[in-house]
Amino acid sequence: MNKTVYVLGLGHIGLPIAAWIALSGYQVVGIDIDRNKLNDIRHNRVKIHEHFNGMHLSQLVYELVGNQQIIISDHLSRLDKKPAIFIITVGINPIENGEHDLSSLQSSLDMLIPLLKEGDLVIFKTTMIPGTCEDYIAPQLIGRNIMLAYCPETIAETRAFIELNANPRILAALDEKSWQAAAGFYRSLSPAPIIAASSFRIAELAKVVQNVIRDVNVALANELAELAELLNVDNQELRELVNVHPRVELLQSGPGVGGYCLPNALGYLQASIKETDTFKLELSELARKINQTRPGKVVQVLRQALAENGKQMENATVAILGLGMKDYCADTRLSPALAIINLLTDNGVRIKAYDPLIECCEYQVQSLPYCLDGADAVIICALQEGMKASLQEMAYYLSPPLIIIDTRDSVETWEGILLYRV
Amino acid sequence: MNKTVYVLGLGHIGLPIAAWIALSGYQVVGIDIDRNKLNDIRHNRVKIHEHFNGMHLSQLVYELVGNQQIIISDHLSRLDKKPAIFIITVGINPIENGEHDLSSLQSSLDMLIPLLKEGDLVIFKTTMIPGTCEDYIAPQLIGRNIMLAYCPETIAETRAFIELNANPRILAALDEKSWQAAAGFYRSLSPAPIIAASSFRIAELAKVVQNVIRDVNVALANELAELAELLNVDNQELRELVNVHPRVELLQSGPGVGGYCLPNALGYLQASIKETDTFKLELSELARKINQTRPGKVVQVLRQALAENGKQMENATVAILGLGMKDYCADTRLSPALAIINLLTDNGVRIKAYDPLIECCEYQVQSLPYCLDGADAVIICALQEGMKASLQEMAYYLSPPLIIIDTRDSVETWEGILLYRV
Repeated sequence: MNKTVYVLGLGHIGLPIAAWIALSGYQVVGIDIDRNKLNDIRHNRVKIHEHFNGMHLSQLVYELVGNQQIIISDHLSRLDKKPAIFIITVGINPIENGEHDLSSLQSSLDMLIPLLKEGDLVIFKTTMIPGTCEDYIAPQLIGRNIMLAYCPETIAETRAFIELNANPRILAALDEKSWQAAAGFYRSLSPAPIIAASSFRIAELAKVVQNVIRDVNVALANELAELAELLNVDNQELRELVNVHPRVELLQSGPGVGGYCLPNALGYLQASIKETDTFKLELSELARKINQTRPGKVVQVLRQALAENGKQMENATVAILGLGMKDYCADTRLSPALAIINLLTDNGVRIKAYDPLIECCEYQVQSLPYCLDGADAVIICALQEGMKASLQEMAYYLSPPLIIIDTRDSVETWEGILLYRV
Repeated sequence: MNKTVYVLGLGHIGLPIAAWIALSGYQVVGIDIDRNKLNDIRHNRVKIHEHFNGMHLSQLVYELVGNQQIIISDHLSRLDKKPAIFIITVGINPIENGEHDLSSLQSSLDMLIPLLKEGDLVIFKTTMIPGTCEDYIAPQLIGRNIMLAYCPETIAETRAFIELNANPRILAALDEKSWQAAAGFYRSLSPAPIIAASSFRIAELAKVVQNVIRDVNVALANELAELAELLNVDNQELRELVNVHPRVELLQSGPGVGGYCLPNALGYLQASIKETDTFKLELSELARKINQTRPGKVVQVLRQALAENGKQMENATVAILGLGMKDYCADTRLSPALAIINLLTDNGVRIKAYDPLIECCEYQVQSLPYCLDGADAVIICALQEGMKASLQEMAYYLSPPLIIIDTRDSVETWEGILLYRV
């Protein structure tokens, strides 16, 4: 009979994982101290935008909880005395001055440790500051005959169920027994390859480096988009042509980099370097800086566009389309759209924001026509399904010339609009 | 009957292209003003390391010239009066202070223009400063009923024949007629997709950007390799783990970036920016700087390794293995190995260099045992076939402790050596 699987943390990663494991026939217990999250799950109101076989995660989890394949709770207690599997997805949060807050992780450990018994397997999924498993977590767990593994997650938000099944996994463990137990568990869930890492530290580092590489390449895309603008070539066509090369990928430029993974990655690397070391991650730091300047760049383009059309930013009404941290996504953590809204309201701009998938912001209106109505300019910050088509259909409602600042290279120019790309 | 194809420039790109076109049944005329190159071709002494169906390029071209499928010459004259195809592979050379030397390109044009007739098709393959085709070349050619196209090359040296057949091509042209003529020609050579670019400028830019992206990602690999060293994790394993991610590629770190394409790419981009523009390619510039510091970093590691073993660099004999600009390559243009040799000889180090494929350097010796004999340290700068195995076999000849500085993550540590990785 399958072991019970306890998933600690029911967020963007934890909840899809809990559902995925339950779908494989395991009894899952999902734990989160945030009762709002639990209520949203119980009432089919989960906003995380994932789908399994066409079914929204919210509905899927609602049903899995309904028939007790997943039991949810705000505290951890064991269902029975059999050896169990514990999966921890609780994150490490950056705070001020390059410091990090390990308190959520420690709360999970505090909740977990008293309940652990010989034969239990604990798997951490959390993106870690390299060294955390070895220096911080393992000392709290070893000597108790507990099996311990680290298996960082690489799923892209909005593609969780596809990638949970398909993506190869990096797996590090305390010892051979732990590694085999964790590998066996994952083999029971999907046929994806499992790649052994020689230490916790290298697995943690690999995960963070993956995110830094994406961040640096977005920064490069942003830098090259500015060059394309200067040379008066179309950035989207440039990207398509560059990516004709079999060994090159130019990522998409945009209004900044949001979400939890990429913006925080550099900080995890920096935290792994001792203060006494003189080494600097120069390139990664500059990339982060470039990505952080993008919302300001969008505002600068808006200001110029308004000025060219005899308008002032201070008296303008601006429609913000798309609030997700990236296209087709309901996650607004560190979303560039919100950063842009903040910069604009600081400048006295009146905001109307629209996103069909997300409710997160006081300036939000419920329909695209109402959002566009009376706007002096539109900023497309992130796409959602159907948004581009609706915008194009809406053209005849708009009083020309409507200024569109397109950060997603998403719309073609059409009569009556003034298109600026960032 | 097929048109005659004239290939101007018989270097690392031009010569494989000439052979590839001849193999498709075209009569090829190969032109190069460098008579040494022509002599090397005539005497089967071509050092460009490419193979077609197991046959070295030198032998292949020797045979193609022997049976007149390729006719070679140091000046351009037409074989007949039929419309012909002219392929120009002659490059733009960087000179001092960000300036570029277009004289070779102009010499090709000067040679070509008087001979051009209505119906001729001229295809440029050269990596260009964006704007060159439109602003510099086209004005010299248009108005004469000449067809003009630009089709940048993406083949990796050592893989020319595979990639000439397989890689999709970017194709820009003066007009629809030119585009169709060039596309038809390429379709007669290979089934690889042909992607239309909307202008010369964007095609030129795409080509240079492909190289800049590689350069930046090598710089990032170099930065992360230093972090890996600091955190005491194995850089090669880290790379393998990072690349488990389906959307991420960590390139290989190394002793620097050589060859003609990558180191010069940034300069081509910078030259496309007007002096009046305030825009800076900050990230790409920092990446270039990082890659340029790598030979110095290798020397620094050597100095420290020698010091740790009670030796001084000034009295040392150092074996340099591999002189190619990258692994398994006979091209030494801007090779990091040569930069390292220069830095070392400036410091009074005695050099013995070895490369089984290349003859280019006054310090070169003819065998690996002789190269290693008496060396205080070995620096592996680039791999060649069999070199790693030979080095490992040779272990028992060496008087321990032999210091090995491995810039290619190529050797495992073994008894009697002190391994340092850069």
